[in-house]
Amino acid sequence: MPGTAANGSARLLLRALGGETLNRPPWWLMRQAGRYLPEYRVLREKAGDFVTLCLTPELAAEATLQPIRRFGMDAAILFSDILLIPRVFGQSLSYENDGPKLGPLPEPAELSQVDVNRLAPVGEAVSRVRAALPETTALIGFAGAPWTVATYMVEGGTSRDFHRVRTLAYRDPIGFSRLIDAITEATREFLALQVEAGVDAVQLFDSWAGILPADGFERWVIRPTKRLVTALKTRFPHVPVIGFPRGAGLMYERYAAATGVDVIGLDTTVPHDFARMVQAQLPVQGNLDPVLLRVGGEPMRRAVTELRNALGGGRYIFNLGHGVLPDTPPEHVAELARMLSTPR
Amino acid sequence: MPGTAANGSARLLLRALGGETLNRPPWWLMRQAGRYLPEYRVLREKAGDFVTLCLTPELAAEATLQPIRRFGMDAAILFSDILLIPRVFGQSLSYENDGPKLGPLPEPAELSQVDVNRLAPVGEAVSRVRAALPETTALIGFAGAPWTVATYMVEGGTSRDFHRVRTLAYRDPIGFSRLIDAITEATREFLALQVEAGVDAVQLFDSWAGILPADGFERWVIRPTKRLVTALKTRFPHVPVIGFPRGAGLMYERYAAATGVDVIGLDTTVPHDFARMVQAQLPVQGNLDPVLLRVGGEPMRRAVTELRNALGGGRYIFNLGHGVLPDTPPEHVAELARMLSTPR
Repeated sequence: MPGTAANGSARLLLRALGGETLNRPPWWLMRQAGRYLPEYRVLREKAGDFVTLCLTPELAAEATLQPIRRFGMDAAILFSDILLIPRVFGQSLSYENDGPKLGPLPEPAELSQVDVNRLAPVGEAVSRVRAALPETTALIGFAGAPWTVATYMVEGGTSRDFHRVRTLAYRDPIGFSRLIDAITEATREFLALQVEAGVDAVQLFDSWAGILPADGFERWVIRPTKRLVTALKTRFPHVPVIGFPRGAGLMYERYAAATGVDVIGLDTTVPHDFARMVQAQLPVQGNLDPVLLRVGGEPMRRAVTELRNALGGGRYIFNLGHGVLPDTPPEHVAELARMLSTPR
Repeated sequence: MPGTAANGSARLLLRALGGETLNRPPWWLMRQAGRYLPEYRVLREKAGDFVTLCLTPELAAEATLQPIRRFGMDAAILFSDILLIPRVFGQSLSYENDGPKLGPLPEPAELSQVDVNRLAPVGEAVSRVRAALPETTALIGFAGAPWTVATYMVEGGTSRDFHRVRTLAYRDPIGFSRLIDAITEATREFLALQVEAGVDAVQLFDSWAGILPADGFERWVIRPTKRLVTALKTRFPHVPVIGFPRGAGLMYERYAAATGVDVIGLDTTVPHDFARMVQAQLPVQGNLDPVLLRVGGEPMRRAVTELRNALGGGRYIFNLGHGVLPDTPPEHVAELARMLSTPR
């Protein structure tokens, strides 16, 4: 059932998120603002460090706008970071060469002292972006889903195998549940702040949804996502929520049916025929392999054509199945933009 | 349809692999020989390096037998390494703290000069193990599946994101196909050597099956696995082949239907209800989260009971969904052994 609020919107993305099948599916790319753009690298150097870049409104706004100026995607996605939430709990965060490093896991008392106003600069960045964007370009806000944010908080950074977080969840499910609940509440407030500042839609990145057994997926992915979506829908019934449970595999269908998200993001491993089946339930977004965008040329063109032919006849938003790789030549994105600007 | 060769075998595992539903499902554990055992650590030190351990028959045999002596699993799995195949092609291999390091990818000419006799010590290890094993204990041989071996060869080790191997497969599918074919042939000969030396069954570890889009999965996982299985079945019709396409997710069903494997290994993420559906097609093996074996106690016991209740009524071999973790307390494995030694 198409969302009535989006009908006739000048923003193509909102019409697609609302459930319309469009002659030209809208597109944007995960991590479309980032290191592959020379102008981003200049900005990043100017900011000094990554967290400063996220929390300085004029810089975060500029990073958000850069890919839109070059390529004219149908949506901008706020330049931010899923690890701002741990910072709200007072957990230290820095970026080293091999990724984020977080300080010790906050104590329960610290988890209850959440002040999302610490993230007010993000709201200011949203207002700036919205004011600068073309009327036809949507603005997407985002946050990490509670499970994924918890994995970083417990592991202290990225992990190859995520043993610590699963060990904690098995040994102390009640304590872990409290952590998940605290993250869920902080994330709800953080997303509300973004919506109030002007984002049109939000995406929940559950980057590590794929490492859990089915019962853990139910408890730590589905349940908090559903709570978060329900809370957001109560306050902002017309703001679409895109869920992206990367690597959910055999649990994609359950996620689509049970969480209440409006649109589901598909990772690179999801076959076209399965995606078409999901389309009957919800609009889908995805899922070109970002390696193909880096490779470019005929392999990219062929895959893009196949993907649009497979999914473009239904409710569909074109995207990658994971973020743009840092060494992607910008010309490949320009070629993609040309392909996607014409109707199928 | 139960395989006739295994009917009435004294080796419970062979009866299960042959398709019988058993009152007490047999069990073994991936990486059951390894660092979590103090006696293994002594052996490893004695050997000096890991490759020497794999290629010295008395040491490899001893490592294989250690867990059987302690825990009496229904099967021993040959202590070996999936990276012996790259060595056969002349690609150098060493183990550093953060995993295997391989030298430069062999040239096409080197790929055609395969001499699997370099792995003759593995056959000798098999004979020694077979002679020392109880009559009721099966012996499983193994190899990496071609795709997974290729990822190590191209990436030069483990990788977080496997961009290089996917880039090569997209840019030069014909060259990459030659690499896959060469690995497939060498692996066929390596497994034949193991069977001729006395293994009862073989397992193909496709540890990185889960990183491919569907068309790549079809071409680089399904196709070479099918070729390998067909060749083995032609020479050794009564030797069961277990396929373990870790992370296959939405492609598990296709893998089970298309490759010709006799039994399918399920990783930790596969839900019980899906596993039951697959059981209607093939016997399944798996899939306790190894983190639960490390955690032990009530969480482990509950999960083991649930798993046996869910799958034990059908064609089933108990195993983990991934290898034993190095810091697993051996007492947890002893408790698991007690649980699994009684009928459901």
